[in-house]
Amino acid sequence: MDFENIAKTAKAAALEIADISTDLKNKALLKIADNLEKNKTEIFEANKKDLLDAESLVTSGEISKSTFNRLKLDENKMRDMIQGIRDVAKLEDPVNKKLFVRELDEGLTLYKVSCPIGVLGIIFEARPDVIAQISALAIKSANAVILKGGKESINTNKTVLGIINKTLDEIDGFPKNVLQQVFTRDDVAQMLKCDKYINLIIPRGGNKLVKFIKENTKIPVLGHADGICHIFVDETADLDMAIKVIVDAKTQYPSACNSVETLLIHEKFPDTEKLLASLQLAEIKLVGDPDTWAFEHGDTTLAFKKVKNLDEAIEHINTYGSGHTDSIITKNIENAEKFMNKVDSAGVYFNASTRFADGFRYGFGAEVGISTNKTHARGPVGLEGLTIYKYKLIGKGHIVKDYVDGTKQFRHKEILD
Amino acid sequence: MDFENIAKTAKAAALEIADISTDLKNKALLKIADNLEKNKTEIFEANKKDLLDAESLVTSGEISKSTFNRLKLDENKMRDMIQGIRDVAKLEDPVNKKLFVRELDEGLTLYKVSCPIGVLGIIFEARPDVIAQISALAIKSANAVILKGGKESINTNKTVLGIINKTLDEIDGFPKNVLQQVFTRDDVAQMLKCDKYINLIIPRGGNKLVKFIKENTKIPVLGHADGICHIFVDETADLDMAIKVIVDAKTQYPSACNSVETLLIHEKFPDTEKLLASLQLAEIKLVGDPDTWAFEHGDTTLAFKKVKNLDEAIEHINTYGSGHTDSIITKNIENAEKFMNKVDSAGVYFNASTRFADGFRYGFGAEVGISTNKTHARGPVGLEGLTIYKYKLIGKGHIVKDYVDGTKQFRHKEILD
Repeated sequence: MDFENIAKTAKAAALEIADISTDLKNKALLKIADNLEKNKTEIFEANKKDLLDAESLVTSGEISKSTFNRLKLDENKMRDMIQGIRDVAKLEDPVNKKLFVRELDEGLTLYKVSCPIGVLGIIFEARPDVIAQISALAIKSANAVILKGGKESINTNKTVLGIINKTLDEIDGFPKNVLQQVFTRDDVAQMLKCDKYINLIIPRGGNKLVKFIKENTKIPVLGHADGICHIFVDETADLDMAIKVIVDAKTQYPSACNSVETLLIHEKFPDTEKLLASLQLAEIKLVGDPDTWAFEHGDTTLAFKKVKNLDEAIEHINTYGSGHTDSIITKNIENAEKFMNKVDSAGVYFNASTRFADGFRYGFGAEVGISTNKTHARGPVGLEGLTIYKYKLIGKGHIVKDYVDGTKQFRHKEILD
Repeated sequence: MDFENIAKTAKAAALEIADISTDLKNKALLKIADNLEKNKTEIFEANKKDLLDAESLVTSGEISKSTFNRLKLDENKMRDMIQGIRDVAKLEDPVNKKLFVRELDEGLTLYKVSCPIGVLGIIFEARPDVIAQISALAIKSANAVILKGGKESINTNKTVLGIINKTLDEIDGFPKNVLQQVFTRDDVAQMLKCDKYINLIIPRGGNKLVKFIKENTKIPVLGHADGICHIFVDETADLDMAIKVIVDAKTQYPSACNSVETLLIHEKFPDTEKLLASLQLAEIKLVGDPDTWAFEHGDTTLAFKKVKNLDEAIEHINTYGSGHTDSIITKNIENAEKFMNKVDSAGVYFNASTRFADGFRYGFGAEVGISTNKTHARGPVGLEGLTIYKYKLIGKGHIVKDYVDGTKQFRHKEILD
């Protein structure tokens, strides 16, 4: 099937799945989890094939050792992957929620109701657990998806999606072709052009992948390229708290996008020397070079800069940051409020580690990704970010003319439902 | 000033206006309304200049008579324009609203708070009242804007924005450069490329303008190109209701985007002949040609087609419609529900005229436009569509390590605020 047909099929599937019950979706999710568990051996074997192929790529330097490690499915990852699907089944259904009910006039009622977006294009790199996770999120949010995984995990992806789709085929009333997979670079190129059928692209992978996609499509893209997070140590910051939070934000998982990259210190903060010494003791590598201000290190390197005041800190963050997550350490509540209001980022924190920027930690249950967009969804995105809304208007033959010529007047009365 | 500098200035202004009080915004709006009223004569004179220049363009056929009429500001339009600004002052502030408050753990509280998007690029055609309306919406939603109006209304636009900006300059504490204006085609070309500073483009104008913009930018665009709305007359529809609703939806204001363009009739509806005869009596021009199914007439022409059943009606709408607003006329509630769930449009109506698709009629107070997007905002868009949200996290030195190593557990408790 060529890409246009795949996309057309996905749109038809999206229109079907939009109207199925919560029960049917949850039943499908639990069956998928069961069947993946039953067919673990088959999945591990496919993964072994991928790993064998990848070994030579590591030797030749085409893929890194860390990509190789991400590619590997072990018992733990398999258990988490299956548990993740069962967790999604437990989450509240994000669609068909009444967002408001308003009586426009007698017998004329407007409902704003959440609904799926339609067709999602998901492009992800070599992490074979992503395919199960995204499939679960798509089913729960009633969207159709076209998945393009990394070529390194092709056997694992095919096997996992094969088991999932076989499960769905056996469920009475579950629409066909909700989850489809494509494999080539040409498919990606066509996906990015296919705004007729695809409503949202979600890239899951490194900075380069996300930037490439954002630069090559007119379809809305949900995600983030850079994660350049800041911590500002204000004049009145508590030294111990500053050390504790910065060490956590830099070392707890340095390659995460919500790790801190730049430390700004108020020039009147009295304990700067002690702070920097403590950070170095925690094996943080401090650099003072302005060239590093717009750079995501992804390791234990931390840029630092002294600033004159809060305003300079805010301006620095709004200039060099990526709008992801930024934190102030202070005892001054007024400064904290100004910081949180004026820093233009998805997450603005007061005395807390930037590492909290995560869907699970925010209590969303499952995470689609983290967005630095200024429209639709921002910050950690849960199932809600895969929905939009429609307006249902129910009347008794109501016409606009009556309200234009003054025969009738609108009431606009909110109804609690 | 070159465009990049204008855009940079707008971003700085956006960061400033994000943090001002509701009172200051409302004070500014009321002063603007007063000053426009005081300087009416000056505005009418500028408008006369535009009309004089436009007369020759009508003669030469470069602009249509209806564009000329839209260009004309009379006492009524002026009064509505000024009243519109006062109405926006009365609306609830859409920013700084707590969308949820969640205790993640003891002393660690997450706030989801609405905030402005940032910099809006507004491109509109020859309607000089738009500049005042958009300025008011931008101020209330705390966004900065760069406005590009039609060249036909250049004198009126300059005068109106001049009065507005002079008013803002005189208000203590109101940030500079929130509202800027550009004039050339080259400015538009640069605006569409300026994704570094501009967060959202809103085109206000005809189909061609909107299509051109959507095809030439990677910045999110809020709006709609086509308005191909349908009414489906089901087997059990009430004849009188069908006539009343269709006549309203087609003739009440035929050039509006929410006017009906295609009528679908169930082949077992017993009164088809009577229905069509009544529509013709109401001076509706019926056409049966399939070429007209994806076409917005904008006049009293109405395409019609008989369909076998509800499913065919739904499929027709999802294939040829524009996702704007579609209505079913029926006595069968099950069919109505299926129609409203399966038709993939921003508005899905049951026994009501499509002409209700409008921000004022929905009770939003002011309307930014109507969106057929599947992300961010859909249907009539009020002030809320000019906002996004940020997450504020307030802790006492909380770190992620404690939750990863099991020292602490998340509570995720909703707090009513």
